Amino acid sequence: MLTLYYAPHTISLATHIVLEEVGADYSTVRIDFSKTQQRSPEYLKVNPKGRMPALVTDRGILTETPAMLVYVAQSFPKAGLAPTDDPFFFAQIQSFNAWLCSHLHVAHAHRMRGYRWVDADDAHSIAAMQRKVPQSVGESFAMIEREMLRGPWVMGERYTICDPYLFTLAQWLEADGVDPMAIPRVIDHRGRMAERATVRKAIAQQLA
Amino acid sequence: MLTLYYAPHTISLATHIVLEEVGADYSTVRIDFSKTQQRSPEYLKVNPKGRMPALVTDRGILTETPAMLVYVAQSFPKAGLAPTDDPFFFAQIQSFNAWLCSHLHVAHAHRMRGYRWVDADDAHSIAAMQRKVPQSVGESFAMIEREMLRGPWVMGERYTICDPYLFTLAQWLEADGVDPMAIPRVIDHRGRMAERATVRKAIAQQLA
Repeated sequence: MLTLYYAPHTISLATHIVLEEVGADYSTVRIDFSKTQQRSPEYLKVNPKGRMPALVTDRGILTETPAMLVYVAQSFPKAGLAPTDDPFFFAQIQSFNAWLCSHLHVAHAHRMRGYRWVDADDAHSIAAMQRKVPQSVGESFAMIEREMLRGPWVMGERYTICDPYLFTLAQWLEADGVDPMAIPRVIDHRGRMAERATVRKAIAQQLA
Repeated sequence: MLTLYYAPHTISLATHIVLEEVGADYSTVRIDFSKTQQRSPEYLKVNPKGRMPALVTDRGILTETPAMLVYVAQSFPKAGLAPTDDPFFFAQIQSFNAWLCSHLHVAHAHRMRGYRWVDADDAHSIAAMQRKVPQSVGESFAMIEREMLRGPWVMGERYTICDPYLFTLAQWLEADGVDPMAIPRVIDHRGRMAERATVRKAIAQQLA
């Protein structure tokens, strides 16, 4: 049994979708950011980092989306979402996901979470970071558009854990000020993802 | 045959050490940041992202350290640096490495590469980011010290790909303004790593 701690409108949706895709038996616990529950003593016992998401397993608790995605995929190998019989293909999946977590998601975070990297009361710098987000997030998506997204899925014909991860981050690009017209293949991928029953179900659960 | 594109004093050292650890047959190509070779047309053909490192393999080119580390480890399974027979243990390795690439390394990058997230001519914001680095990098190391580093190696008794990765980032903590006295277990780990012949050889090659 797996339990996903999540908050709506966070990167937790990626793991939620993959749990649906593999047909896992899982439950969810919603964390309310408006009440700062991610910093509550109860949640810090689950994830000392105070961030979303976390996955409680029979073996222990996992955090960090790239790790959780691979773990769920490998726990349900028949779904084939992160094949390990080909180390190079697996490495390409890993490389894509590392770009999302260390580059695209980080660029996005400068819009709402600038206080991580400058003093929270430094209004000038906080605003300066926000102004750069359309460019930095846009360039990160442009790299995906141009060099990384094979189509129809991220890794080509094969649907993998990369797809829900990209889809989740692509939810936020308009709010980040990125022009959708500049990245038509990413938008096309997002539309294709939104039609999947698993994706609709995960989103409905998170927003319920 | 593997070819590592690297630059001294970058995260490329982590993969370099792992290549030594597994006994790989590999060559290296040095990229000179002082001449902005990472943005040269020649290098952009290797890695369109214009960043270090990149690993040329018989199957194609890989980028992103977490992916490269796993690929090298899985290509030389006898070395056992990223065992895949236990999905949970592997996920814990992945989780640790994701923290390094998306949190610790990102915090560090705000000291020298603030132009990624604000306009390069905004001296106030660039300086504001630099001032926060001792705190943000320090907190990231404190989380490792307190919650993640098991000892003697990152994952406990077993030496894994997490160790060269942490070691490489720990090279920079004094320059980032982090107090080594606050993280004695990280410093102890760094010292233990520095004694390894493989680590010395990789460093010597990079600085030659």
